[in-house]
Amino acid sequence: MDEKGVTLITVFEVAPDRVDAFVEQWRERAELMRAAPGFRDARLHRARTAEARFQLINVANWDSAEAMEAARADPAFQESVRLALEDAVPHPVLYDVVVEYP
Amino acid sequence: MDEKGVTLITVFEVAPDRVDAFVEQWRERAELMRAAPGFRDARLHRARTAEARFQLINVANWDSAEAMEAARADPAFQESVRLALEDAVPHPVLYDVVVEYP
Repeated sequence: MDEKGVTLITVFEVAPDRVDAFVEQWRERAELMRAAPGFRDARLHRARTAEARFQLINVANWDSAEAMEAARADPAFQESVRLALEDAVPHPVLYDVVVEYP
Repeated sequence: MDEKGVTLITVFEVAPDRVDAFVEQWRERAELMRAAPGFRDARLHRARTAEARFQLINVANWDSAEAMEAARADPAFQESVRLALEDAVPHPVLYDVVVEYP
């Protein structure tokens, strides 16, 4: 385990009229993630204005990239993602925290 | 003060060879922010791969949109942003946390 961990930030492109449905569906998928080894925390953010380019951004922290990939390889998760793709295009990217306050 | 607060997520478009310089410059600007009333926390994330569409994403939590706007209106902050714009195009958007784990 990497003590610093890794941050998976997923920018979702979602049609404005599909955001509510997507959030509900995301909640179910997150239940699978939070039970996975190496999961630390996750926050799904929703834009305050409908004009924002990115309506939804998820920020999730994991112990390591390996732990995250193992969780995403789970068949139940894969099936949930397949359903979600009808509503949104995800852009998941791994990040390191380079500056942090406080 | 809004107890839930608000999250400012800024996606930066930065040329790969300017990322290091930008991070240093961002650190100075963040020093101005952390001293501002209503500031909670901030994390600057850097992509692990140079191919990622968004090399840098800042996630900052504030007590309220008003507190954040007051901090950004500070002349010292404005000057710092002006310098940063030579390196990066920021896309700041206000978000609410709609799902959170744990």
